[in-house]
Amino acid sequence: MLPEIWNSPYSNDCFPVYAEDIDAGGEASPSTAMLSEAAGLLKVTIVGGSIPERSGDRLYNTCCVFDSDGKLKAKHRKIHLFDIDIPGKITFIESKTLTAGETPTIVDTEVGRIGIGICYDIRFQELAIIYAARGAHLICYPGAFNMTTGPLHWELLQRARAADNQLYVATCSPARDVAAGYVAWGHSTLVGPFGEVLATTEHEEDIIIAEIDYSLLEVRRTNLPLTKQRRGDLYQLVDVQRLKSDS
Amino acid sequence: MLPEIWNSPYSNDCFPVYAEDIDAGGEASPSTAMLSEAAGLLKVTIVGGSIPERSGDRLYNTCCVFDSDGKLKAKHRKIHLFDIDIPGKITFIESKTLTAGETPTIVDTEVGRIGIGICYDIRFQELAIIYAARGAHLICYPGAFNMTTGPLHWELLQRARAADNQLYVATCSPARDVAAGYVAWGHSTLVGPFGEVLATTEHEEDIIIAEIDYSLLEVRRTNLPLTKQRRGDLYQLVDVQRLKSDS
Repeated sequence: MLPEIWNSPYSNDCFPVYAEDIDAGGEASPSTAMLSEAAGLLKVTIVGGSIPERSGDRLYNTCCVFDSDGKLKAKHRKIHLFDIDIPGKITFIESKTLTAGETPTIVDTEVGRIGIGICYDIRFQELAIIYAARGAHLICYPGAFNMTTGPLHWELLQRARAADNQLYVATCSPARDVAAGYVAWGHSTLVGPFGEVLATTEHEEDIIIAEIDYSLLEVRRTNLPLTKQRRGDLYQLVDVQRLKSDS
Repeated sequence: MLPEIWNSPYSNDCFPVYAEDIDAGGEASPSTAMLSEAAGLLKVTIVGGSIPERSGDRLYNTCCVFDSDGKLKAKHRKIHLFDIDIPGKITFIESKTLTAGETPTIVDTEVGRIGIGICYDIRFQELAIIYAARGAHLICYPGAFNMTTGPLHWELLQRARAADNQLYVATCSPARDVAAGYVAWGHSTLVGPFGEVLATTEHEEDIIIAEIDYSLLEVRRTNLPLTKQRRGDLYQLVDVQRLKSDS
């Protein structure tokens, strides 16, 4: 797994400059061509963080997932754009340059059924509920929280999504570069289905290697059978696209 | 605010013994009569924790909210019963004796619009979403997490509900009695709309007095306009009772 926007500085000025045409592929997208090659050579599944994607006259913040044969299995375009304004702390309006994706992304890989979210997507609990309902074992959130929202919410949100939905959550952030225009919080983390931090790192360059034991999902869901205990007579989360595809 | 089941030991054996007929009132419910009197005398709003309630041949885990004139404003019967089984750690089956409530409870008081949940209700993120959508400023969860789920989830869930829904969350737990059959974690807490712990305590008997500034709700919702940024085209939480009452 790689972090959010790993091929470019994180700024609205840079997104158009570093954007690649993923669908055209080859020389039009050297970043994804490299990931595809690496996945195939090393025979590993790669959740390829995200890069700015150019598609026609639009730009997206896009995560590509490659199977262990190097094939592009899924492409997630960030659904919730990062438009926030905490005066004196952090203001960023991603929608100045980017277009929001139109669909949740869940993908069956050799290492489980994975839901994908990018950074700000993690703030929307409904997306994680949808992924859990669609059978996700793991949600991967490449993300680049900052020095304000990082200490406030980065770990909190990961642990909450994992505990509430009883699944694994993995995040990958860029390392911190204090000279950058956007300073990332770092702290890539793996969280288990009880909301427990299984592996994490500080803000410097690092690699996390950790085992994920999916049998724990069943254990935790037996310990606390939240899904069965939900009160469908009082509330129901509608997965709009799934509803449409069923009807 | 008082804790969960404050008039009785927390056990299925005790619930029937200590249960009171709240609707009959007076001598049939000395606990709520006392709370009503205290609210009126002191001219304060009281979120009265919970007591076992007898209603006909049923028992509920019930929270009463009293206005500053001593009037009973609302009664919340725990919606999600505490049926969990973590072998070797904690097993409790509340549904052996109790019946689940049939409705979310939100109440306008002199100190704001308050949603009520009791203990295990906090695990269901949908309930908090419903309360936020109905305009809650504060969600109060009297609760008695235990020595297993307490350290794992008590603070995490409070902070997540507050940050995700951008409102205040207050919890009140019994102090810890290590000689009791059910040992409570303690740690009553007030959390602000950024998920920040504003006031908390340890596991011993204590009182928290803290100010709540509702103007912060608007500040945080302007900083991060999550409600506007939700993707209603992809997911929608249906508040079933509200939907029925509207139609």
